[in-house]
Amino acid sequence: MTELPSSRALPRGFRFASASCGLKKRGHTGTLDVALIVSDPPASAAAVFTQNLVQAPPVVLSREHVRASAGAMRAVIVNSGNANCSVGPGGMVASRATAERVAELLGCGAQQVVVCSTGVIGVPLPVGRILKAAPGLAKSLASTPHAFEGLTRAIMTTDTRPKRAAASCRIGGSKAGKTVRVAGCAKGAGMIHPNMATMLSFVVTDAAIEPAVLDVALRDVVGRTFNCITVDGDSSTNDTLLVLANGASGAKKVTEAAGTDYKNFVAALEQVCKTLAIGIVEDGEGATHLVEIEVRGAPGDAAAKQVAQTIALSSLVKTAIAGADPNWGRILAAAGRSGVPFNPDHAEIWLGELKMYGPPKGASYSIALPLDESAAHRRLLEKNVPIVVDLHNGRGSARMWTCDFTKEYVHINASYRT
Amino acid sequence: MTELPSSRALPRGFRFASASCGLKKRGHTGTLDVALIVSDPPASAAAVFTQNLVQAPPVVLSREHVRASAGAMRAVIVNSGNANCSVGPGGMVASRATAERVAELLGCGAQQVVVCSTGVIGVPLPVGRILKAAPGLAKSLASTPHAFEGLTRAIMTTDTRPKRAAASCRIGGSKAGKTVRVAGCAKGAGMIHPNMATMLSFVVTDAAIEPAVLDVALRDVVGRTFNCITVDGDSSTNDTLLVLANGASGAKKVTEAAGTDYKNFVAALEQVCKTLAIGIVEDGEGATHLVEIEVRGAPGDAAAKQVAQTIALSSLVKTAIAGADPNWGRILAAAGRSGVPFNPDHAEIWLGELKMYGPPKGASYSIALPLDESAAHRRLLEKNVPIVVDLHNGRGSARMWTCDFTKEYVHINASYRT
Repeated sequence: MTELPSSRALPRGFRFASASCGLKKRGHTGTLDVALIVSDPPASAAAVFTQNLVQAPPVVLSREHVRASAGAMRAVIVNSGNANCSVGPGGMVASRATAERVAELLGCGAQQVVVCSTGVIGVPLPVGRILKAAPGLAKSLASTPHAFEGLTRAIMTTDTRPKRAAASCRIGGSKAGKTVRVAGCAKGAGMIHPNMATMLSFVVTDAAIEPAVLDVALRDVVGRTFNCITVDGDSSTNDTLLVLANGASGAKKVTEAAGTDYKNFVAALEQVCKTLAIGIVEDGEGATHLVEIEVRGAPGDAAAKQVAQTIALSSLVKTAIAGADPNWGRILAAAGRSGVPFNPDHAEIWLGELKMYGPPKGASYSIALPLDESAAHRRLLEKNVPIVVDLHNGRGSARMWTCDFTKEYVHINASYRT
Repeated sequence: MTELPSSRALPRGFRFASASCGLKKRGHTGTLDVALIVSDPPASAAAVFTQNLVQAPPVVLSREHVRASAGAMRAVIVNSGNANCSVGPGGMVASRATAERVAELLGCGAQQVVVCSTGVIGVPLPVGRILKAAPGLAKSLASTPHAFEGLTRAIMTTDTRPKRAAASCRIGGSKAGKTVRVAGCAKGAGMIHPNMATMLSFVVTDAAIEPAVLDVALRDVVGRTFNCITVDGDSSTNDTLLVLANGASGAKKVTEAAGTDYKNFVAALEQVCKTLAIGIVEDGEGATHLVEIEVRGAPGDAAAKQVAQTIALSSLVKTAIAGADPNWGRILAAAGRSGVPFNPDHAEIWLGELKMYGPPKGASYSIALPLDESAAHRRLLEKNVPIVVDLHNGRGSARMWTCDFTKEYVHINASYRT
C-alpha cells in the first residue's frame, strides 16, 4: 500500500519529524533528507543489518547501540543523500557525533539513539548540516500522519514512491485485551542502485514486548519477508531494518515467543513487513512486473528457498518475463543449477493457472505441455506473475518475490554519474 | 582469433564435414546444422560436461561413451537447432540412434562416437533428418581448413561469428622432438540464450597422450579458461568441452602429467582454450566490452576466484561498464558480499592503470582517490576493460573474463519466441 496510515492506525507514543538540510539535490523525491523518530517511552528494539562485509559506520554504530539499549531505545536519526560509507575514520566520527547531538536534545544516552544513512558511497558526509538541523527536528516532532509521511519521504533516494504499511492486532484476549498498532516504512530495494546504499526500513509498534522476544519475532518474520525479495542480487553496505516496541498501547506485555498474543503480534508484524518488502520489489528500478516464485516439493524449506532464489536471480528468467515470454526452459535450467537435487523428469512448472511443463496424461515423465501460447503471452502482460515449480522431491516449500529485468533497469544503472 | 587455421596448423589425422539437414531456420549463421569430426587413428578423449542437474540425453550418453572409450574415440557428431533436452525418453533413443548410425558408417563401435546437440529445449529432435544426412557427411569428410570451417559454422546458434583457435608445441625435445598441433572451435556463451542450450567446444590435437594424462591436462586448463568466463551466470543443459588426441604427429607419447613435454602440451592446450573462452565472452549477447577481472591478495586462489566471480556476475558492475561509468563502489560492494574475508579499509581497486580506491599518500586506510573522471570515462570507452582488485589479505589470485550488460542483452532475451 502507499496510502498513509490514519491517525488511529499510528502506534501511540511515537513522534516523527523531517527536514531538508542540503544533502540531497532537488529531484522527483523532493528535498527532505533528514528525519527523526522518537519513542517517548523507552522502547524495546530489535534490528537486522546488512551481511555485506563492507559495512558503513552507521551500521556498525547502530548494531552496538541496539545491543547496549535493546530495552530502552529512544530515537532514530536517518539521512538520505549520503551513505557515510568507505570514507575513512571520519565516517564513524560523524555517526557518533550525530547520535550524541540527538541524545543531548532528548536528554537520553547516545546509545539510546540509532543512526542510519543512505545515499552515495565514498563521499565524506557533511555532518555539520545534520547537526545543525537536529534542534529544528526535535522541536517539530509530532505524532500525526503528516509527520509520519515526512519520514517516509525523507528516506527516499531512487524510489519512485514512499513505501508504508500498517496493521493491528489484539493482545491479552479478544474481549479483555487491547489493540496494538504496527506501522512501518521502507526505502530502496536490495542494492538496486549501489551508490545509493540502500535498503532501510523502520517499523514502530505500541505493543509491549520483551527485547529478546521482539528479536525472535523479527528474525522469524524477516526470513519470510525481507529475506525473500531480490531485485538484482547485489546487497548493500547500509541495509538496516529496525523495530521499536514502546508499550504505549497499555496492552499486556508479551514475554515469551509462544502463545496466542505472540502469534497475533507476529502476524501483524509480518503483514507490515511483507507489504513493505513487496513494495520495494514493485518499485524496483525499471520493473514492470511483480513476480512471485513458489517452489514446492523440495527436500526441505531451505532447499526450496535456494531453488526459488536461483530462479529469482536469473537474468534470463527476468528478461523473459519483461518480454512476456512463457519460457519454462529457463526456469527449469535455473532450478537445475541451484544445487538442490530433484528429477527433472518429474518436475512441474506453472505460470499462474497454466501448466507449462509436466507429465501429460498417462505419461510418467515431464515434457513441454501443449500450451496456448497467446493465452500465456496475454497472462504475462498482467502486472502480477505467479510462477509455481513443483520438484516432487519432498515437502519443503518457499516463496520469493522479484521484479522483471527491463531495458530501463540497464538504462538507469548504466547512466554515467554526472 | 576468428581467422581459420591454415592447412599446416590443422592437427594431422582428423577429417571434418558439415551439412544442412533442416534443423535450423536460415539466419545470419547460415543453414549448416550438422557436422562430423572423425579421427582416423583412434584417439585419446577427455571431456567436461555441464554441472546443471538438468542434463540433455546427448550429455548423458557422451559421458558414458568417453568413460568407455577414453583411449579409442573415433568421432563426434553434432547438431545445432535443437538441444534434444527435456523431451522425455525419446531424447535418449534419438542420441543412441545417431551414435549407432555414425558407428556403422565408420565401421567402429557406437561407444566410440560422441554425440552433441545445441539449440531449442523442449522440442522433440527430428532425428530422422540427422540419420539421413549421416552418409553424405561420412562421404564428404576432408582434412582441409575449408572442412574445418564448415564445422565451426554448423555449431553456431546465437553466435555472431565462429570462434576458432590453434597452437602448436614441440614434444620430445626442441631438436629431436616433433611438432604437435592443437586446434579447436567453440560456440555459445554460458547459458547466454537458455533455450539455445548452449556452450560446445571441440579441441583436436595430433599429440599422443595417455587418456588419463589428457584428462588431467584438460581439467587443469579448464579451471583457468572456460571455468573463468561468465556472461550471465546461467549454466546450460548441454555444455560439452571435448578434447581428442590421436597421436598422428608421430611425436613421442606423453605418459605422465609432469615434465617438459607435458608442460609444453598444456601450454598449447591452454592457449587454444583461453582464446576460445575469451572469444565466447567477446561474442556475448549484446556485449560491447570485454572485461578482465583480476583479484589479488586473497586468502587463496579459490577465494580470489570467488571474489572475481561475484564481481563478474554483478548486474550493477556490468551495467556500469556498459555506461562507461568508473563506479568502484559497485565493485567494492560486490567483493564485500562474496563471502571472502578482507578489510575494506585496506583494499585497492584499479581501472587499468588508474587507481580509483586505496590509501592516499601517508594514510593507513582506503578512500576514493582523486580521479580524473573524464579520463576514466574515456578509458571505459575502450573495448577491453581490465579491473584489478587487491584485497591485501593473502597471496591468492585469480582472473575472470566477462562482458558488459547492455540494453541489447535485455532486448535479445526479452523478445517473445515467435
